[in-house]
Amino acid sequence: MRIAKLVVVGVGLMGASCALALRSSAAVGEVVGVGRSRANLDRALARGAIDRGLTLDEDWTRELAGADVVLVAVPVAQYRSVFTALAPALDGRSIVIDAGSTKQDVVRVARETLGPCLPRFVPGHPITGSERSGADAADATLYVGRQVILTPLPETAPAALARAEEFWTACGARVSRLDAERHDRILAAVSHLPHLLAFLLVAELVSRSDGAEYLGNAGGGFRDFTRIAASSPEMWRDIALANRDALLVEIGAYRNALDALAMSIEHRDAKAVEAMIAKAADARRRWGASGIGAVDDAS
Amino acid sequence: MRIAKLVVVGVGLMGASCALALRSSAAVGEVVGVGRSRANLDRALARGAIDRGLTLDEDWTRELAGADVVLVAVPVAQYRSVFTALAPALDGRSIVIDAGSTKQDVVRVARETLGPCLPRFVPGHPITGSERSGADAADATLYVGRQVILTPLPETAPAALARAEEFWTACGARVSRLDAERHDRILAAVSHLPHLLAFLLVAELVSRSDGAEYLGNAGGGFRDFTRIAASSPEMWRDIALANRDALLVEIGAYRNALDALAMSIEHRDAKAVEAMIAKAADARRRWGASGIGAVDDAS
Repeated sequence: MRIAKLVVVGVGLMGASCALALRSSAAVGEVVGVGRSRANLDRALARGAIDRGLTLDEDWTRELAGADVVLVAVPVAQYRSVFTALAPALDGRSIVIDAGSTKQDVVRVARETLGPCLPRFVPGHPITGSERSGADAADATLYVGRQVILTPLPETAPAALARAEEFWTACGARVSRLDAERHDRILAAVSHLPHLLAFLLVAELVSRSDGAEYLGNAGGGFRDFTRIAASSPEMWRDIALANRDALLVEIGAYRNALDALAMSIEHRDAKAVEAMIAKAADARRRWGASGIGAVDDAS
Repeated sequence: MRIAKLVVVGVGLMGASCALALRSSAAVGEVVGVGRSRANLDRALARGAIDRGLTLDEDWTRELAGADVVLVAVPVAQYRSVFTALAPALDGRSIVIDAGSTKQDVVRVARETLGPCLPRFVPGHPITGSERSGADAADATLYVGRQVILTPLPETAPAALARAEEFWTACGARVSRLDAERHDRILAAVSHLPHLLAFLLVAELVSRSDGAEYLGNAGGGFRDFTRIAASSPEMWRDIALANRDALLVEIGAYRNALDALAMSIEHRDAKAVEAMIAKAADARRRWGASGIGAVDDAS
């Protein structure tokens, strides 16, 4: 795939990593970055991720002329203003793709703002990331071997979908498809809930007057369990609210499981406790061996 | 420190790693392994962790003669039978140390079984481990830079305490001290609870008829969050029940935090959601930078 011109709106970890990945395989010509802060655009320039950068306060939509691909990688709460500005200026040749972690809300906003451009929008969610954020954290290999879930609409043009698949494949990703509602339900369970559980554990501990002594005695299990608790508060606030309904269902299911476990422990029901743990350990070992999670699971 | 003879009762991950660590610095002469299964003893022999191995069914207590250190590293549920067999045969020169993850129950069993040997028992908990277990998983560097929390009794002989500190230091660990009750309370929060939360997430997902589709879309966050969910079911069942009271307190506190978060999400209270996440992210980043968790946190 050869992209003559790519416009990346939101040059953070996800957007800048795409640009670096395509650069490294010479799959892209010109890359224009658009973002909130001049400081981050300057870092993206210094990293070689973009050729020039415009802030959202500037007349950035003129850069849409001639773009093959417009990648929207801003926090989901900003999609409405970005799409609203983008739609009237979109070049007839462009496809629009995104990297948002929730999809039903993105599809809703797209329907309300993109108008006749809607068939050229291909929503997607790359299952990758880092607790770090910003252009500084960008990495040309962020997508390599990782999954990108596309959630096309009934209106999505087959040619746009094919080009979006090519784009993500050129970044090194494996592409799959899901219905947007199904995506949000599954991601609530395997990503959004674990993030919130990790945030909660740390927040609860540091709320204690003697929290420092707790953290001072934490080890490697705590470290891995809470790695994702260092993630961006703004982004995860948005995800929690954007995927509210699915997340409340998952929190409810999890809470029921937690209550059942507490009962087993309270009643010293060794068999029930061990059965739950054995079920999890067996499944987690098989999942780790499957290689679905990532390339470095063998560590 | 030079140990002429070390007896390791329980040659699993923790016990065999101690032996390998002391071997690698030539701090130990003879190492005798005692364990449940001949197969695991044979693997420990093959790894060079022990010089000879006896099963618990054999007359292993004769090997206590001349031992400088007896390391008990069996699951905590087996301490009573091990201590009962060990006490009458203990050599006057020996100290007894252990590597159990809970300490009040260990101290209780020690008081009931060790009799006049009690002052020479120094309870300890190394804050290290792996989701893998057995002699195959042993690693000479498992303790390097990690913390070992000793929970001495009022009766503990100062000389025994000093030798236990030397032992763990020789394995590469940093040694600290806590009261046993305080240890159990803190570890319930920073280790036992996160393990159970990780087990629960995986167990809940694989209980669903479409659980495979959920796990098939999980990524790096799920991988790290659930790494500890591959840990030994037997060991974690024992820990959950041994530290029952402290764990129920922690589950209750966590459940309250989860309920509060669900309320915030339900009411679309963006400020409250972000405040909780920001508190956690800030604390987790500072903890990661502190190096307390482990040497490889920078990854």
